[in-house]
Amino acid sequence: MALSEFKLIQRFFANSGTHRADVRVGVGDDCAVLHLPAGKELVVSMDTLVEGVHFFKNADPESLGHKSLAVNLSDLAAMGAEPAWATLALTLPSVDEGWLEAFCRGFSSLAATHNVQLIGGDTTQGPLNITIQAHGFVDPGAALRRDGAQLGDLIYVTGTLGDAGLALQATERTRLPLSIQSRLDRPTPRLTEGQALVGLASAAIDISDGLISDLGHICDASGVGATLYVKDLPCSQAVRDYIKVSDDWALPLSTGDDY
Amino acid sequence: MALSEFKLIQRFFANSGTHRADVRVGVGDDCAVLHLPAGKELVVSMDTLVEGVHFFKNADPESLGHKSLAVNLSDLAAMGAEPAWATLALTLPSVDEGWLEAFCRGFSSLAATHNVQLIGGDTTQGPLNITIQAHGFVDPGAALRRDGAQLGDLIYVTGTLGDAGLALQATERTRLPLSIQSRLDRPTPRLTEGQALVGLASAAIDISDGLISDLGHICDASGVGATLYVKDLPCSQAVRDYIKVSDDWALPLSTGDDY
Repeated sequence: MALSEFKLIQRFFANSGTHRADVRVGVGDDCAVLHLPAGKELVVSMDTLVEGVHFFKNADPESLGHKSLAVNLSDLAAMGAEPAWATLALTLPSVDEGWLEAFCRGFSSLAATHNVQLIGGDTTQGPLNITIQAHGFVDPGAALRRDGAQLGDLIYVTGTLGDAGLALQATERTRLPLSIQSRLDRPTPRLTEGQALVGLASAAIDISDGLISDLGHICDASGVGATLYVKDLPCSQAVRDYIKVSDDWALPLSTGDDY
Repeated sequence: MALSEFKLIQRFFANSGTHRADVRVGVGDDCAVLHLPAGKELVVSMDTLVEGVHFFKNADPESLGHKSLAVNLSDLAAMGAEPAWATLALTLPSVDEGWLEAFCRGFSSLAATHNVQLIGGDTTQGPLNITIQAHGFVDPGAALRRDGAQLGDLIYVTGTLGDAGLALQATERTRLPLSIQSRLDRPTPRLTEGQALVGLASAAIDISDGLISDLGHICDASGVGATLYVKDLPCSQAVRDYIKVSDDWALPLSTGDDY
């Protein structure tokens, strides 16, 4: 794969997402140069998706473009941050323009929704690997953290639990409602909820590994325990149906990818 | 590879580099939270190294830890920025503690030299892939860019050209002086020079692809041409010896990896 092909890709992504006035230098120089609003703290998160580990070979590239950004924006949401910029390190086995166009469409659509501009990154040849870093702002000291939980706090989640796990099981069996499948393929970063919780929530985390595991991270960091009433967990009808038949609570408790 | 092993890795890297007072939340939460000095602009660069493309299989992990950070700091240097923080996305085929310890040693040593703190990242399983983002500061509008070159400007480089290219050729032939080999394996990010050039240089770039290619980027972005007197290029004795024998000027002109 010639270098010139990679230059083409860079141009491909040069106009992704929003154009923000706080980007002094964007894609195309050695670095991006950015203006942080006065009096704000910078919040950054970096997540990698690897083919065969985090997604199936031949996964839909548009969903992949969405999801690889969404999992990073979800981390910003968990800190109560307002998103701003993203960088993308894309390692590709070969240049497939159709794949790239679809990936870019999924990425850019979500980026535009949340006023996020792609400001730089790297494109290299190798086994498919997608690393994104998301950047956002919070007021000083306002970031929601894992270590603030107090005795007596109530536990809340956004959305319904276990849909992504159900979709993951179903890919090799049967077709599910689109609403369930899209909970796996196109997770929703809870940015509005995260920002609204600043000053209200004592601690927060995004559920990537599963409720028990991620709630455990809050408990560990905060030095507290937690009681879960599993029958009160918010679940979709499809997950409730699954539990009714199987009596298996793993979906809402531990399959993860809920965000 | 169990998740718990990856948690171990995270702990491994938790104390890499320097501890900086401007890191409000470092490794261990959903995001890092950072304090940017008042009146500064944020400068970021992201580069990926892929096994079999950017380095040989079984490359020395300590050198790899150094180089993967160095190529990013080199981008900051090219903008005249002062470095501050780094994130690391490390995709590994398996957990090899000896490899990790050596990689971390190379990374941390360079990070400490330049007062850089590792603030977060991700560790995943898959074919070896190293993505780092470096973060630094510049005064508003002071970043050195590719597009500022003027007619009549002189062209300067730091260090000597072609050593990394010579070392790359030599790996399959003969042993070179350590000083030449280390120009490939442990490049020097020219941070002091970059910061000293703010307000003096009209344009700057780091030489990763080779002098002709990267000077071409400056010319393209600035809308100017350039004349190179190849016999005046600063080269080490080893490269001058090679050219004398071969009459091949590719090393200082186009082999790259000089930084």
